[in-house]
Amino acid sequence: MNYRMTGYLLGIIMLIEAALMILPLTVAIIYGESIFPFLITIAILLVISLPLAIFKPKNSRIFAKEGFVTVAAGWILLSAFGALPFVISEAIPNYIDAFFETVSGFTTTGASILTEIESLPKGILFWRSLTHWIGGMGVLVFILAILPSSGGQTIRLMRAEVPGPTKGKLVPKMKHTALILYGIYFVLTIIQIIALLLCRMPIYDAVVTSFATAGTGGFSVLNNSIAGYNNPAAEWVIAIFMFIFGVNFNLYFFILIGKIKDVIKSEEFRAYAMLCVTAVTVIAINTAYSFERLGDCIRASFFQVITIMSTTGFATVNYDNWPELSKAILVLLMIVGACAGSTAGGLKVSRILILFKSMIREIRHMLRPNSVNVIRLDGEPISDETSHSATSYLSIYVTLVALSALAISVDGFSLETNLTATLACINNIGPGLAAVGPAGNFSGYSYFSKIVLSLAMLIGRLEIMPMIILFSPMTWKKR
Amino acid sequence: MNYRMTGYLLGIIMLIEAALMILPLTVAIIYGESIFPFLITIAILLVISLPLAIFKPKNSRIFAKEGFVTVAAGWILLSAFGALPFVISEAIPNYIDAFFETVSGFTTTGASILTEIESLPKGILFWRSLTHWIGGMGVLVFILAILPSSGGQTIRLMRAEVPGPTKGKLVPKMKHTALILYGIYFVLTIIQIIALLLCRMPIYDAVVTSFATAGTGGFSVLNNSIAGYNNPAAEWVIAIFMFIFGVNFNLYFFILIGKIKDVIKSEEFRAYAMLCVTAVTVIAINTAYSFERLGDCIRASFFQVITIMSTTGFATVNYDNWPELSKAILVLLMIVGACAGSTAGGLKVSRILILFKSMIREIRHMLRPNSVNVIRLDGEPISDETSHSATSYLSIYVTLVALSALAISVDGFSLETNLTATLACINNIGPGLAAVGPAGNFSGYSYFSKIVLSLAMLIGRLEIMPMIILFSPMTWKKR
Repeated sequence: MNYRMTGYLLGIIMLIEAALMILPLTVAIIYGESIFPFLITIAILLVISLPLAIFKPKNSRIFAKEGFVTVAAGWILLSAFGALPFVISEAIPNYIDAFFETVSGFTTTGASILTEIESLPKGILFWRSLTHWIGGMGVLVFILAILPSSGGQTIRLMRAEVPGPTKGKLVPKMKHTALILYGIYFVLTIIQIIALLLCRMPIYDAVVTSFATAGTGGFSVLNNSIAGYNNPAAEWVIAIFMFIFGVNFNLYFFILIGKIKDVIKSEEFRAYAMLCVTAVTVIAINTAYSFERLGDCIRASFFQVITIMSTTGFATVNYDNWPELSKAILVLLMIVGACAGSTAGGLKVSRILILFKSMIREIRHMLRPNSVNVIRLDGEPISDETSHSATSYLSIYVTLVALSALAISVDGFSLETNLTATLACINNIGPGLAAVGPAGNFSGYSYFSKIVLSLAMLIGRLEIMPMIILFSPMTWKKR
Repeated sequence: MNYRMTGYLLGIIMLIEAALMILPLTVAIIYGESIFPFLITIAILLVISLPLAIFKPKNSRIFAKEGFVTVAAGWILLSAFGALPFVISEAIPNYIDAFFETVSGFTTTGASILTEIESLPKGILFWRSLTHWIGGMGVLVFILAILPSSGGQTIRLMRAEVPGPTKGKLVPKMKHTALILYGIYFVLTIIQIIALLLCRMPIYDAVVTSFATAGTGGFSVLNNSIAGYNNPAAEWVIAIFMFIFGVNFNLYFFILIGKIKDVIKSEEFRAYAMLCVTAVTVIAINTAYSFERLGDCIRASFFQVITIMSTTGFATVNYDNWPELSKAILVLLMIVGACAGSTAGGLKVSRILILFKSMIREIRHMLRPNSVNVIRLDGEPISDETSHSATSYLSIYVTLVALSALAISVDGFSLETNLTATLACINNIGPGLAAVGPAGNFSGYSYFSKIVLSLAMLIGRLEIMPMIILFSPMTWKKR
């Protein structure tokens, strides 16, 4: 283990967090609120991070192990210090509650323990929403984009942070890939802010809502989430942008360089769009009885389907009251998620496609043991390693969901609550069903369960392995 | 596809069903009930099966495909004709209901659509319980045991019917292996009948209860299941035999030939026993408040844990009223099941062990990509093929559970009901939670859902592949 390099990278992560806190601090100044919560946190971050980050170690070589450990520890530190402004401002007086809320922010989950949001300071809520934007694309990717390139090993950091079963570079240089991704992310966010302003949303709300949409997070500054705006045009804008941020960002790069064909050819994108359209159609028919106008029915169905698929977690209606069929569809979509390489969570559509194709190959193999079966995605053959790692990913995922739902059942909530709370956290969605549905929240869980669910959110955001490796005794054993 | 040989084997299966129906017919004579339901069914079976089974085809070669198709089609035919006595006697007037009940019998699920059992004819209830005993060890295994050996290919039939991730022969000849298994099964059943008689259970009840225990089925002839006997000694006997029938039968063979060491060495057996003891302990502590005496608490905890683990489905208390932690443990145990090579359903403990060891290997591989990792079970190395097939089995299993729970959600039952109904069917347990809990039953589901759940039971009993291959267009495509 290269401790010096790991420490250096962790120092940089904390330094960036301190720098980013200047934004909510500025908002607090604008609205005449207390700036101490941010000042104190920035001071603490600087004291700890500067000694670590000031000298770059000579040996900057890192291997898979260091990559996973840095990413996992980095995200935990980000959340641990990011929780401080909530505690200091007494917006969330208890540290474990604040930690849960911050993990929920950075992992773009959007699960909240707050029951009353609107009375909180605007600076604090700005920080809460900004964590979504930071967490959406990833902090390590950000570091890659801004730091001078430190050799070929940086791809290990990105591999550990960017979600999806297959990862590649867009352009030969990792640093440029990271810059392009952040550029697309930034521009799309700005476009959404402008679109929401055109729908007559106040500027503060437009900005924080766009942060939460871009990161597919789901924190809102109103108690009733997006329903509180009572603004159908804004609902359409948000729904469309949730769809957009659920698409693999590589496709936007292909559009920019004129390779429109590659976008249309993308099996993952087509499956994502098809799934969305199918689910919206079935749910619209299934829930039609509860709407007076067709437009309202379609808007509500589309909004709720895409808020779940993109794992954002905004709400315009309380889908916990919908018929069981619609709820079952939403629970399934919770697990599917959106495209790899987007800011969304869940298993990812491409992983589902690989799993599905592996199953068909398995059946073919049973019928004709001697024939050769290659599975392809977008025409490219999928290696056995990729398909095996997708199936073993699923088995670890199922195990973790089961164990987490079992662990939090000590609090006595129903199976439906515990299972959907776990799914909502590990897939980084936010609300689930029943007691944690759109009208409920996570405040009823014990501190033990909040820690379990915080780990589930981090495990889901980092796609399991980094967190497992951080806590595995094997990692820390000396050879 | 060797259609002649497949037809011949299906004919034999139906012939055996006709022969087995002489048993309930005899019971009906003893109790002075109508014998027509059985006579008519036997006549129909003979008319259809004799032309198929009378001449053995010259070409008796079968491949994997024929093996899977024969097993899957055989089980469907068994259930389709086995349902006739219920319909003819008007015990279950509707054919789909009767088919569900018969599938539930042969697959040793024990899920019932009957709300009033005690008023039904004893001959009919005897047939209902006998289907458990027949389905437990398998019909094809029975054929292998009684028919003259038809070459080495017969192992394909047994592979398709005997549950578990790894299958082997006990002795060089398949026929002898089948005979030994059926011999052990028969003797253990007789011992249980005697033990129940010693607990002063009436002979009829002792026989049908032993059938249902041996097959790990769970049909009872009382409305309140085993609780109806109010007989603590019998509850202990049944619980212990549920444990016994959840153990790999190979271990009993090892005991017979004096290889006790192999039994103690068995990782699956130890994990099965450990899981059982742990679950009983936690549930006993969790439910202690509801019992007056410690003995009652331990008996009830042990009975309910082993009824779920062995996938039998008897009940002595309504565990749907237990605390959420205990219910969550039971739901997890539903998925685990008991040992491979037993009469129980579920994923099987050995498959869980392989999955678990594969996960650890995956983590090791991430940390040290160049090191060689071999996983072992009982000291024997597990091939990559076996471990991959365990993970892909899990992914198909999870997909089928999700799709089935989605399909039956059209009936408007809760997520908890639909999910546990699916788990109870695909794992061949019987009761689930909420509306399908021990105090409820499956009668509320629509015919559509009953067919979906019938398929789930068959898929679970035959471990997925045979049913998928029977219904796959690839199987029927000409090369």
